[in-house]
Amino acid sequence: MKTPSTLQGLIDALRVLPGVGPKSAQRIAYQLLEHERDGALRLARALETAVQQVRHCEQCNTFTEQTLCEVCASPRRDAALLCVVETPADQLRMEQTQTYSGLYYVLLGRLSPLDGIGPRELHLDRLMKRAANGVVQEVILATNFTAEGEATAHYVSESLRARGLRVSRIARGLPVGGELEFVDSGTLAQAFIERRQVG
Amino acid sequence: MKTPSTLQGLIDALRVLPGVGPKSAQRIAYQLLEHERDGALRLARALETAVQQVRHCEQCNTFTEQTLCEVCASPRRDAALLCVVETPADQLRMEQTQTYSGLYYVLLGRLSPLDGIGPRELHLDRLMKRAANGVVQEVILATNFTAEGEATAHYVSESLRARGLRVSRIARGLPVGGELEFVDSGTLAQAFIERRQVG
Repeated sequence: MKTPSTLQGLIDALRVLPGVGPKSAQRIAYQLLEHERDGALRLARALETAVQQVRHCEQCNTFTEQTLCEVCASPRRDAALLCVVETPADQLRMEQTQTYSGLYYVLLGRLSPLDGIGPRELHLDRLMKRAANGVVQEVILATNFTAEGEATAHYVSESLRARGLRVSRIARGLPVGGELEFVDSGTLAQAFIERRQVG
Repeated sequence: MKTPSTLQGLIDALRVLPGVGPKSAQRIAYQLLEHERDGALRLARALETAVQQVRHCEQCNTFTEQTLCEVCASPRRDAALLCVVETPADQLRMEQTQTYSGLYYVLLGRLSPLDGIGPRELHLDRLMKRAANGVVQEVILATNFTAEGEATAHYVSESLRARGLRVSRIARGLPVGGELEFVDSGTLAQAFIERRQVG
């Protein structure tokens, strides 16, 4: 028996979801059609609306429905601090900590020579111009501690320091609540090297 | 910072997918908007089309775009055999084995007194009428081997046998490639009880 073609179309289209292979796509499609037809229609409309209306902030690149995102448009944020992250999701994570009052620059990627993503593809000149606007006093690099995130942080910090700007990098170390026994040696070594004086 | 409202709407709507909680919904939404806008639109259209066009076969209840599904409409299937399954997904699994040439009846559920699903809610009278159409020679019960699936099979078999119909149940036992050491005792006990004579 062949699967009805629109059902097969749905199964194929579901593969766009991260981590969904052919088997789970099939399971999801059957589940939706059997029990969640209204929810499926709501999801269809939400996808369409979001794709149409969510764009990138003209200043920091994060997601917004306006020209400027809420953070960039706020007069209460400290324009002297500029935090550089890789993705809008990373920017959201930073905001969720509720400890940072400065502005952001979202790279929308990371340097990855193997994938052909160099400084030009990342539009790093836009970041340089932004950082050198005379208002920014410190650039905080919050790219990931992966090989590519580290390379990006290194490249960006070199370029910024050549322009005489103050650059910092978020700390590596044990997680809050972390135990020495269970942390990997690389992290423990870095936590040791980057130890802070007490008192 | 508040998430843009259409983005939040997408995150909420994604919760309709099985196994997707608030955190993965957020991850999926950001992932789609950052890297898969075309795929997200394709998914929106596929959901809409499938919900509009996929309906239930008038004879066996499985998914189809026609009045009758491909199996029910085929002249090459053996109308003397009727296999009862719980869901369209189960029917698909049976078809994928390519060993069954009869017809199906999809219950679209199982008896579940705690959820208020009794024989009437399952429309078991339709199944009884179908099984007693004079053509069906054997009804094969392929509901799950869960408490509810077993109860459903028991109830259906009693009703059918009271009408003088031949009823069978798919076998319990070790899976193909299964090892005694790793199978649960219930399954092993059943495999022992339902042993078949060799030669």
